[in-house]
Amino acid sequence: MIDFERELAASQADIGLVPRSAADAIAAGAARLSRDVELLGRAGRDAGNPVGPLVRALEEASGEDAARFVHFGATSQDVMDTAAMVVGRRAGGIIIGDLIGAAEFCARLADGHRHVVMVGRTLLQHALPTTFGLKAAGWLVGLTDAAANLSRVLTERLALQLGGAAGTAASLGPHAPAITARLGDRLGLRVPPMPWHTDRVRPAELAAALAIVAGTGSKVALDVILLGQSEVAEVLESSGAGHGVSSTMPHKHNAIDSVTAVAAARRAVGLSGIMMSAMSQEHERAAGAWHAEWQTLTELIRASGGVAAHVRSAMGSLTVDADRMYSNLMRTRGAIMSERVMLDLTPELGRTHARQLVGGAVRRALEEDRSLREVLDGEKEVTACRTSEQLDVLCDPVTYLGTSDQSIDNALAQYESYRASSGREA
Amino acid sequence: MIDFERELAASQADIGLVPRSAADAIAAGAARLSRDVELLGRAGRDAGNPVGPLVRALEEASGEDAARFVHFGATSQDVMDTAAMVVGRRAGGIIIGDLIGAAEFCARLADGHRHVVMVGRTLLQHALPTTFGLKAAGWLVGLTDAAANLSRVLTERLALQLGGAAGTAASLGPHAPAITARLGDRLGLRVPPMPWHTDRVRPAELAAALAIVAGTGSKVALDVILLGQSEVAEVLESSGAGHGVSSTMPHKHNAIDSVTAVAAARRAVGLSGIMMSAMSQEHERAAGAWHAEWQTLTELIRASGGVAAHVRSAMGSLTVDADRMYSNLMRTRGAIMSERVMLDLTPELGRTHARQLVGGAVRRALEEDRSLREVLDGEKEVTACRTSEQLDVLCDPVTYLGTSDQSIDNALAQYESYRASSGREA
Amino acid sequence: MIDFERELAASQADIGLVPRSAADAIAAGAARLSRDVELLGRAGRDAGNPVGPLVRALEEASGEDAARFVHFGATSQDVMDTAAMVVGRRAGGIIIGDLIGAAEFCARLADGHRHVVMVGRTLLQHALPTTFGLKAAGWLVGLTDAAANLSRVLTERLALQLGGAAGTAASLGPHAPAITARLGDRLGLRVPPMPWHTDRVRPAELAAALAIVAGTGSKVALDVILLGQSEVAEVLESSGAGHGVSSTMPHKHNAIDSVTAVAAARRAVGLSGIMMSAMSQEHERAAGAWHAEWQTLTELIRASGGVAAHVRSAMGSLTVDADRMYSNLMRTRGAIMSERVMLDLTPELGRTHARQLVGGAVRRALEEDRSLREVLDGEKEVTACRTSEQLDVLCDPVTYLGTSDQSIDNALAQYESYRASSGREA
Amino acid sequence: MIDFERELAASQADIGLVPRSAADAIAAGAARLSRDVELLGRAGRDAGNPVGPLVRALEEASGEDAARFVHFGATSQDVMDTAAMVVGRRAGGIIIGDLIGAAEFCARLADGHRHVVMVGRTLLQHALPTTFGLKAAGWLVGLTDAAANLSRVLTERLALQLGGAAGTAASLGPHAPAITARLGDRLGLRVPPMPWHTDRVRPAELAAALAIVAGTGSKVALDVILLGQSEVAEVLESSGAGHGVSSTMPHKHNAIDSVTAVAAARRAVGLSGIMMSAMSQEHERAAGAWHAEWQTLTELIRASGGVAAHVRSAMGSLTVDADRMYSNLMRTRGAIMSERVMLDLTPELGRTHARQLVGGAVRRALEEDRSLREVLDGEKEVTACRTSEQLDVLCDPVTYLGTSDQSIDNALAQYESYRASSGREA
Repeated sequence: MIDFERELAASQADIGLVPRSAADAIAAGAARLSRDVELLGRAGRDAGNPVGPLVRALEEASGEDAARFVHFGATSQDVMDTAAMVVGRRAGGIIIGDLIGAAEFCARLADGHRHVVMVGRTLLQHALPTTFGLKAAGWLVGLTDAAANLSRVLTERLALQLGGAAGTAASLGPHAPAITARLGDRLGLRVPPMPWHTDRVRPAELAAALAIVAGTGSKVALDVILLGQSEVAEVLESSGAGHGVSSTMPHKHNAIDSVTAVAAARRAVGLSGIMMSAMSQEHERAAGAWHAEWQTLTELIRASGGVAAHVRSAMGSLTVDADRMYSNLMRTRGAIMSERVMLDLTPELGRTHARQLVGGAVRRALEEDRSLREVLDGEKEVTACRTSEQLDVLCDPVTYLGTSDQSIDNALAQYESYRASSGREA
Repeated sequence: MIDFERELAASQADIGLVPRSAADAIAAGAARLSRDVELLGRAGRDAGNPVGPLVRALEEASGEDAARFVHFGATSQDVMDTAAMVVGRRAGGIIIGDLIGAAEFCARLADGHRHVVMVGRTLLQHALPTTFGLKAAGWLVGLTDAAANLSRVLTERLALQLGGAAGTAASLGPHAPAITARLGDRLGLRVPPMPWHTDRVRPAELAAALAIVAGTGSKVALDVILLGQSEVAEVLESSGAGHGVSSTMPHKHNAIDSVTAVAAARRAVGLSGIMMSAMSQEHERAAGAWHAEWQTLTELIRASGGVAAHVRSAMGSLTVDADRMYSNLMRTRGAIMSERVMLDLTPELGRTHARQLVGGAVRRALEEDRSLREVLDGEKEVTACRTSEQLDVLCDPVTYLGTSDQSIDNALAQYESYRASSGREA
Repeated sequence: MIDFERELAASQADIGLVPRSAADAIAAGAARLSRDVELLGRAGRDAGNPVGPLVRALEEASGEDAARFVHFGATSQDVMDTAAMVVGRRAGGIIIGDLIGAAEFCARLADGHRHVVMVGRTLLQHALPTTFGLKAAGWLVGLTDAAANLSRVLTERLALQLGGAAGTAASLGPHAPAITARLGDRLGLRVPPMPWHTDRVRPAELAAALAIVAGTGSKVALDVILLGQSEVAEVLESSGAGHGVSSTMPHKHNAIDSVTAVAAARRAVGLSGIMMSAMSQEHERAAGAWHAEWQTLTELIRASGGVAAHVRSAMGSLTVDADRMYSNLMRTRGAIMSERVMLDLTPELGRTHARQLVGGAVRRALEEDRSLREVLDGEKEVTACRTSEQLDVLCDPVTYLGTSDQSIDNALAQYESYRASSGREA
Repeated sequence: MIDFERELAASQADIGLVPRSAADAIAAGAARLSRDVELLGRAGRDAGNPVGPLVRALEEASGEDAARFVHFGATSQDVMDTAAMVVGRRAGGIIIGDLIGAAEFCARLADGHRHVVMVGRTLLQHALPTTFGLKAAGWLVGLTDAAANLSRVLTERLALQLGGAAGTAASLGPHAPAITARLGDRLGLRVPPMPWHTDRVRPAELAAALAIVAGTGSKVALDVILLGQSEVAEVLESSGAGHGVSSTMPHKHNAIDSVTAVAAARRAVGLSGIMMSAMSQEHERAAGAWHAEWQTLTELIRASGGVAAHVRSAMGSLTVDADRMYSNLMRTRGAIMSERVMLDLTPELGRTHARQLVGGAVRRALEEDRSLREVLDGEKEVTACRTSEQLDVLCDPVTYLGTSDQSIDNALAQYESYRASSGREA
């Protein structure tokens, strides 16, 4: 908000509407202004927003001569909305940094574990073989897409608000367009086609992008928590000494970063809903819906930012137990290969009979605690048309990984392309 | 879902994996398949989704020879997710048509009423003069931005899902990439870098875009309702005989399209929240969050589509009462010009004194039911530095409209550019 | 949280498990403990909650001998959940005080304005006559019901949490039930049938009751804003000097209390949704959903409390303009009496014909700017069966107020009964 | 809605306002009225609600003489709101039946498995021993509390709506209170202190109670899904042939009832938020918020009802594998007993040293794949103060179950008391 007032005066000085000395005095006043947020908040109650008290404080700090040029021609909503956009851009940049940081770790996990086979789980049940590399590639695509979406909003959609009390900018006089252009430049915000007071598409797009960051991060965190369960133990989040440790239960390895990310994501999604439902704003300034956005956007930025930071930390500390992944995969003794065996036998046996035969074999294998491979050896219809070597291959998860390798390459390429375009180091 | 199965077989025939005759038989079966949704729904309960019963019905309808090529290598989630994307694209296209229709009406209102002055209202109180053209231009920008955002999602983000049970596409065999490319083409969907089973950024982006459509439309509708209040009566929504009429209260003019749009928008925003919170999905297929999306997305599309259609209808039928706008504007007898008089007197009187003097004049004018112009005539400090002609101008709302004209032009240009790029007729 | 630790030690001393001197030392330590919330928050990151750092600080503050009795047998969730319940009860009590304060003002408005006729508005259109007393009675019933519901939750549903790490209370030893009973007594909380770690019905009920407070308050505030619109001007919220005043637009009377209440209510409803969606908690302690509750409940209490306080302030300052209400009522020159005239003529003319005749008369009256009464004088079918005196009565809004008086009495009686049962002064 | 119209006429006949023959004709007309909901919906678009078309259809069906007594004195909102309450009561009764059904199964599980030890899990990590009986008792308390809360709303808070267009009941004439009393009786709904048109506490309370049902049910379902994971395999949901079976992956046991319950609960919570946010309704009838409730409440009832029904089904079919629970519990070879050993050694060793010593022992045990009991044998400080028999007990999970038994008894007693008071058979 202080930046807005300082740069507004400077913009007006640029075109000669305000003496440069006054703009300088306002900048000096802004620099020494107290940041006592609670005081401003209390003082702003009667007017319904904190801009009046801030302007009065800035007038005082800027000295008598400059005072009348403070906040010249602006309205409270100009300050609040523009400040929200500036905060959104700054915080958004940090969040993107964390997302790229998390994505970079995922990229390394994906690339480095492309041959680490593990079980794919659907509805939390063993389904088919996959690789940990592919799982990490899936995380990577989600994080990259969420970051790219947020980047787009930050770059293309965050815009200056400057329209005066009713959006006509009449109080800014005939130079309003020139002031607007300069102020946009100075604050690094887009200049909108017109003041957007009660057109809330911009804040809503920001809120949605932040919620999507949270949702994506939450999926990654949830997977880490589930993979780290005592019975699964395929990954371990271990962000350093004391992290996730219980004083009375030393056997626990709590995935605290991931748990915190899940919690923050739940909050972010709900907070984003408040922003969305506040889009319906009356006439030239809303009677409540606008006011509901302020604290909500702040909390939403914190929550989504928390998700990104904690997921980055979790990804950076992840220990992967490839042996355990393999032993979990083999727990059902080959039953997870049933789909492949069925598909392979379908030409000879027909779909229905292949299903029945393999289904029966799987059930027998599980009941008798034998491997599917062994049971198939006793199935004459199977051995009649497949050699022992063929059956070995059919029952080997390592040979049934489909496009996982290409998918990893695609995900890495997409990430690298986004990262490069973002101009950031990994 | 049927389209998915038909085009999957056709894609597999394209590359020689499935006999063309089988693909044709499946297409023929698909054409005559019963659309008894309730039956499929009930039959799908045991498996947790309706794909199994649909596949069985299609197998039967396709004849014995083709049956085993139905749904070949696909998993339920491939069908459901791809179908959601196809439905999203089709329904999204209709919604964009309605948004452009509504925007076109707004454009005409903005252009045609750029000189119709009215009062701008903040917190539902008279604030400053504006024009109805500017108000309509604000609606136009909101609708255009929401449509452009949805267009972007439809074009760039809706993608095919084809990954088999665990996202490895192993069941599709070595030709999975070729099948995927062809199926994407046939269904008009993007081919993603990898299967996106539990990466829900895409459905979330669609949901967010639909919620933003609803939120924007709701703002327009709310303004219409407020402007049509019995005491305000500046616009009238009148979509034809019987519309908004009460049988026992013939004096009422209910803005039924706008009311319905507001109602649908409330639903859309809430439904979109369900989609957002469902992004956190376990491993390779979620245990509930995915299932929560299906009905929700359908309802969300209906609700947002309802908003767009009703706003279009409201905009198309809007009657604007320019005289009433002017008489409402003048209700406070010039008090709304106080900001301008203050700003104008500030150089001579200083900001603080100008505020006090004009504030006092306004209060007196309101108490004594006189015009601000009259009261200012009795203020010596004012008449000492402003001529009577100058005061006439200062108190005339028609001369205090700032950038409203340019804003309208900008809004029209932005809309026209989007519309042209969308390839649609207005 | 400090209260929990202090009273836990005291309860354990009550039954001889902990030396009384140790409990006293803990109480003394608690009294001088630093309340540096940010420090605790940061220190709690590694463990995922702030209880560990708090306990260590309390151990230190309690002295070497007492240290080992601090937090004895308790788990983090015992502290956090019980603290949430204690905070809920205390804050809830304040909120109920504000609700009763607001309700008391409504009761006076209802009773004092029972004969002040005004127009009832449906879909923001003039519908039928009503009284301001009845409108205030409607507010009163909403506030009373919301307060009674919250009271019920505070009294019957807020319960102690004490179960140790897995809800078995094994760490508390064989005296767990005795400790629980004493601790419940000391903290003024119910003793639940069993630890409720991941059974979140209690926090959900609290959240729902707070959301309902917010929703009800929001309805009242919205009515105040709408009634205070420049064109309506039937009520004025005026909470004292400087309240709702704009420095540059002195003609405005912003209903700042009501606007703030509407804003807070939007936040409260969204925050309550986060609490509701967090009910689904894993096993014996949730991996994120529980953590999402903490900050959310705090904010929800603040938001709902803000609604109650601002509605109380708005109600206490409300100025009612009965003349304006009457003149607004008469704006449609009797057209709002059409329902009654129709109903009255139905026996003679039949429902259909009565509707057509009166509908036509209303339309003519509005078009020709005459009163309905005048137009009816020219309708032979009407004058054939009704005398001039009868028509005067039929067209007089003051005689068509139905049960408004009895409704006010019922509302007052219900409020008084609740207030008396709450043991509070109005 | 039809019931409302029929019983309204009957109530008016009761007090002589309407001929009994007309009321009978209306009842006969109601019985043969078409239930073409889509047709009514379309016909109701112009008026914004379907009551008008329904009334016209009923007029026609009732015959010429009775037609004018159809819907006499009522307004659309009377019909819609009362119908919502009637539907809420009927559907709510079914939901309570399912909740009691589910609770009864939980009660049997709790009672029958009170000695089945299993591991308690916090943050999805092994924490301390508990029993499956206690876990089921926790489910039982949640379901009982949710059912009791819903019962309370159904019995005490569902109320008739009858107020005419503006809530004054003027159109009902002087007998309005008598009609209201009779209609309440006939429909089995409470008679409110006054019409509650825009006081939405009642629908909000119903929505909140339904969301709490969903949230509670979702917790139970989530536990079942987690306990049924391939690696955990402690329970199996098996609702009959074909249930949860995958045609291509016969080794899977999908917990389809639980998955469906989780999905429905996600929807219910979001839908309930729409209801809550719709509480803010304008004047005497809302311009959109009211209309947003209709479809939402219907869907919410379905979703919460779906949760209750599927949880009942899951609970009724649950297979519990006590051996597996024990072997999972013992997986960490006694490490989960560390808390108890620490607490036990604290008097001799002090809290800090006891933690260090036992923590070290646990880490060594896990690293060396030995049992905690074995490692403790080598700790001189331990063997110096505890006998071998004492250490056996300290390390035996079966002896560290705290109040689990009493908790189960309390939960059963609370359930039984609610069930008895509900007048339902289990």
